[in-house]
Amino acid sequence: MPRWESNTRERLEAAALALFTERGFEAATVADIAERAGLTERTFFRYFTDKREVLFAGQEALRDRMLAAVTETPAGTPPLAIVEQALLAMTPIFDARREVVHARQRVVHANAELRERELHKMAMLATLLAEALVTRGVPPTTATLAAETGMTVFRLAFMRWIETGATTSYAESLRALFATLTDVVTATGA
Amino acid sequence: MPRWESNTRERLEAAALALFTERGFEAATVADIAERAGLTERTFFRYFTDKREVLFAGQEALRDRMLAAVTETPAGTPPLAIVEQALLAMTPIFDARREVVHARQRVVHANAELRERELHKMAMLATLLAEALVTRGVPPTTATLAAETGMTVFRLAFMRWIETGATTSYAESLRALFATLTDVVTATGA
Repeated sequence: MPRWESNTRERLEAAALALFTERGFEAATVADIAERAGLTERTFFRYFTDKREVLFAGQEALRDRMLAAVTETPAGTPPLAIVEQALLAMTPIFDARREVVHARQRVVHANAELRERELHKMAMLATLLAEALVTRGVPPTTATLAAETGMTVFRLAFMRWIETGATTSYAESLRALFATLTDVVTATGA
Repeated sequence: MPRWESNTRERLEAAALALFTERGFEAATVADIAERAGLTERTFFRYFTDKREVLFAGQEALRDRMLAAVTETPAGTPPLAIVEQALLAMTPIFDARREVVHARQRVVHANAELRERELHKMAMLATLLAEALVTRGVPPTTATLAAETGMTVFRLAFMRWIETGATTSYAESLRALFATLTDVVTATGA
């Protein structure tokens, strides 16, 4: 993608997030977003099908990176360790776009319909992850359990990373939650 | 509740499940259900607000039993073991109503809107379970992780129990999945 195209997409994204934050997702229109970015509506629609897509288009890149990490993990790696590697593979994207990711999350969290869509996307990611494990020879029940447990860990680690602001990295937060999972599952008494 | 009332509710439930199975959830009306049960629509509405509630009303009893089990578990029990006890507490209800539970599940599974509602109910159960753990002094992140992981185990165990028909008990299926979870989380190499 030529540099100016990438820049146009980023300008539209930044304008949309700023408006969603200021006015709420419902109140901001595509016309408002294009105007704020100093671009036309026509240009907006060359990059996104609607204003909701501004919030969810980036997930395809995350998904692709996650699934690539599953195939790249050495043979013999246990299923949950593969899932952890897949989730850690998203670190560069999250770290490079911390502000955008945080702003996006606040917008999604504030709107019931967007939260539903986010949950649905997470469920789909878990399914894709489980399928990728099965392709590597992991039995289906183990694969589903590892993928869904991993997504629960991811969701909590991601939330904590958002909440702690700049003090923790995404990777640290994820590793800490995986350690908590091990404690929770192996605890034999208090 | 006097015996005949309980019986009326069960007749309506059985008639509804039979019709949902034969015609699909959308096509069966409250009038059809009442007629099949040999009762009036007015009687139907004394027990259920709509036909969807026939499928979901029973979940309140399950929820109450689960949360009661959390409070009854001895002090010092580790969080995930509390969750396992809570999920095992539903065994008598499931075992006594195996056919009804199976038929209900097939109806829910066949309809996208009902599946969504079921997912939503499961998410709410996980939240209630986590809150009950926090009330017992479990730290919030550990509580959420234990509750959500437990609900994932429950969902898979329940599906497997449904799939295996009469050959496995719900409790056996649940225990087997908790054992798989321990294997998945503690595996250090294949």
